[in-house]
Amino acid sequence: MITKTLVEKVLETNWENLNENVILHGKKSLLNWLGVTIGAINHKSIDIMLDLAREVQGPPQATILGRRVKTDLLFTALINGTSSHVFDFDDTHLETINHPSGSVAPIIFALGEFKGLPPRELLRSFILGCEVELRISRAIYPSHYDLGYHITPTAGVFGAAMAAGLLLKLNLKQLVMALGIAGTQSAGLREMFGTMTKPFHVGKAAQNGLLAAMLAQKGFTSSEQVLEAKRGFANVLAPSHNLDRLLHRWGEDFELEKNAFKPYACGIVLHPAIDACKELGRICPPGEVEEIMLKVNPYVLELTGKKEPQTGLEGKFSIYHSGAIAFLEQDASEDLYSDETVKNSRIVEFRRKIKPTVDESISEEKVEAILKKKDGSILTVKIEHATGSLESPMTQDMLNNKFRKLCAPLLTQEQIIMLIERIMRFEELNSISEIIDII
Amino acid sequence: MITKTLVEKVLETNWENLNENVILHGKKSLLNWLGVTIGAINHKSIDIMLDLAREVQGPPQATILGRRVKTDLLFTALINGTSSHVFDFDDTHLETINHPSGSVAPIIFALGEFKGLPPRELLRSFILGCEVELRISRAIYPSHYDLGYHITPTAGVFGAAMAAGLLLKLNLKQLVMALGIAGTQSAGLREMFGTMTKPFHVGKAAQNGLLAAMLAQKGFTSSEQVLEAKRGFANVLAPSHNLDRLLHRWGEDFELEKNAFKPYACGIVLHPAIDACKELGRICPPGEVEEIMLKVNPYVLELTGKKEPQTGLEGKFSIYHSGAIAFLEQDASEDLYSDETVKNSRIVEFRRKIKPTVDESISEEKVEAILKKKDGSILTVKIEHATGSLESPMTQDMLNNKFRKLCAPLLTQEQIIMLIERIMRFEELNSISEIIDII
Repeated sequence: MITKTLVEKVLETNWENLNENVILHGKKSLLNWLGVTIGAINHKSIDIMLDLAREVQGPPQATILGRRVKTDLLFTALINGTSSHVFDFDDTHLETINHPSGSVAPIIFALGEFKGLPPRELLRSFILGCEVELRISRAIYPSHYDLGYHITPTAGVFGAAMAAGLLLKLNLKQLVMALGIAGTQSAGLREMFGTMTKPFHVGKAAQNGLLAAMLAQKGFTSSEQVLEAKRGFANVLAPSHNLDRLLHRWGEDFELEKNAFKPYACGIVLHPAIDACKELGRICPPGEVEEIMLKVNPYVLELTGKKEPQTGLEGKFSIYHSGAIAFLEQDASEDLYSDETVKNSRIVEFRRKIKPTVDESISEEKVEAILKKKDGSILTVKIEHATGSLESPMTQDMLNNKFRKLCAPLLTQEQIIMLIERIMRFEELNSISEIIDII
Repeated sequence: MITKTLVEKVLETNWENLNENVILHGKKSLLNWLGVTIGAINHKSIDIMLDLAREVQGPPQATILGRRVKTDLLFTALINGTSSHVFDFDDTHLETINHPSGSVAPIIFALGEFKGLPPRELLRSFILGCEVELRISRAIYPSHYDLGYHITPTAGVFGAAMAAGLLLKLNLKQLVMALGIAGTQSAGLREMFGTMTKPFHVGKAAQNGLLAAMLAQKGFTSSEQVLEAKRGFANVLAPSHNLDRLLHRWGEDFELEKNAFKPYACGIVLHPAIDACKELGRICPPGEVEEIMLKVNPYVLELTGKKEPQTGLEGKFSIYHSGAIAFLEQDASEDLYSDETVKNSRIVEFRRKIKPTVDESISEEKVEAILKKKDGSILTVKIEHATGSLESPMTQDMLNNKFRKLCAPLLTQEQIIMLIERIMRFEELNSISEIIDII
């Protein structure tokens, strides 16, 4: 009866049972999610989806964030959810490589706007949706991921259903049914990585979870034990798993408190090198650099060894480009991974000074950078924990700055500042429209 | 490149390459599908879905068959697909326990009506959609099913995407993308059997497959090797598989020719016993019966041992009830599995004369029935292959009769006869509206 017990625990967890830290993490997660969603909303994949929606969509119920158009609830969840994952720049529960906000936040925004729900209730449902999703992730990781499932949507569909179910005021039995209808739709193959279908997974999980909760509300029946049954989710989709993790220290630890935010718009393996090059750029003028040696774990170079990237996307898999922008621009934000930037002659010239060498003794989360100046002198920087790790989390300022950069193409500085201020006091707002109306 | 090769084979298969037998099987499959869909269309689960659709649906593009209402293409596919599987009375590819029409036929009806496509093109796309679905089923059966996946939707989403893609005139590359977007949505757990969510799987596979084709048409990108990739469909969802089966004797054998139709509205394991009791009822008046001993394989009684069923659904798992209606009513149609029928005193009294005994030496597809008359004499019937098996398929008359019974609550005899006549010359029609307008 673990599915049912999990739902009981969720229902017992009122606003008063949430600690300050998880509430803060919830708001930071929403801020980060909104930034990456708005940032990618003009991507070609979103154009395609909106074009499709125009053919079959229902009434204008909720807003496509950053496009100033509305569509029906199900398409809103699909499209906002997809956009949030286009840049691969979302939040990360590092232990399970799950991006929890991806399929839960679209539910909060869509139902919150359509039904005019109180922001405090939205934030509680967001936190609890993420908590269910992350605990399921922990129960099936790593065997599920190693087999080839994209864990963000496969677990995310449960998070979306739970958040939607809470907001639709489902009772215990209906919530159990909602998890059943959601879990049997759980899908997403890692083979799709590198294509538009990867972010689509996340939007689809949001949409399917919402559909599950809406069906359950109307009395649709499903299994009462989707998680634990012999032919249920865990046994079928995870060769090994530990369902005890679902309830372990419920209410004491919140997995969302371990949610991290990416400071840089590329894979996490590059982040230590970027931190090191930023630091070197801060203390040494570019003209004085002869070369920068980066000692990294072999796995890092295997993933990011693209010497002469020709597109922005290839730049994300290039330690040379990433090191150069970090040194010269003091950042590695999405705009620095554009097709133009990777061809910029100043950056192309500098990236040839970056010399990675592999060293088995250096773990993946570390880097040692040795800068040789033209005058023969040496500067050394060691990074033990990159920015954005649990040991060295992004500060609120860094997160605000990331949000600012992501929104800058669409919104004024004044709008952006107002958005940050309102999201960081989310539970005090009268309505989520106070956020959506700015965008 | 097996995904791509499969699509190439499909594109090469024109109407002229289809043999007469597969065309006939295609039409019989559509007839059977339409019957079970109309038959269940007033089920509570369909009411719930229509109620939900009313909240979020798009324009009225295609018809919910038997309800005289239209909804948007995606909801039409979902709802008609779900209805077809509510009675568990659909067609069956016996080798893989897949019901191929379930998620493919809704596409044919929805796109055919909305776009006014030529029926011959619809029938070709139906046959090829089913062929892709069934070949994928054969490649992953039985490991995929044994693990706990409901193979009808998991393979069906590919069939739906292929049929939709052909009807939307996708090119080779787009069709490959459509299979990718479809395959990564493949889902459905056997744990849901016995709940409304089981038929929902089938409708959802139709809807997801249609969505995949519509996205691919607009340039949405996906993997080029969803079936064969290391982290693709077969490796992730089937512990063992044989992808050579996808292309084996393509164009020579059609799996759809092996599609069978259930004569009785219950699990196939009961069909030999029903055949035997029907035959006994034909030759012996009920009043003369002392008892009927049914020698069956132990597995049969394990699944159908419900002695005193209280609901129609329980009746489907009762060899006692099923034997009684077969003897007394000469059928085991959906209407004989109603809540009223299982409580009918004449049937209740007669079912107590049915005495199953298990016999390891009798295989599942056989039965030996020994009727003991009150006067002490004995009648014996042996069934080697039940009606509806490949060895003893339903005749066209039987299929017509099944269709008639399923449609009778909604349509006049005249309408039903006209429907049968038109479906059986489907490729000669000018428009699928000639069918839909009757319903």
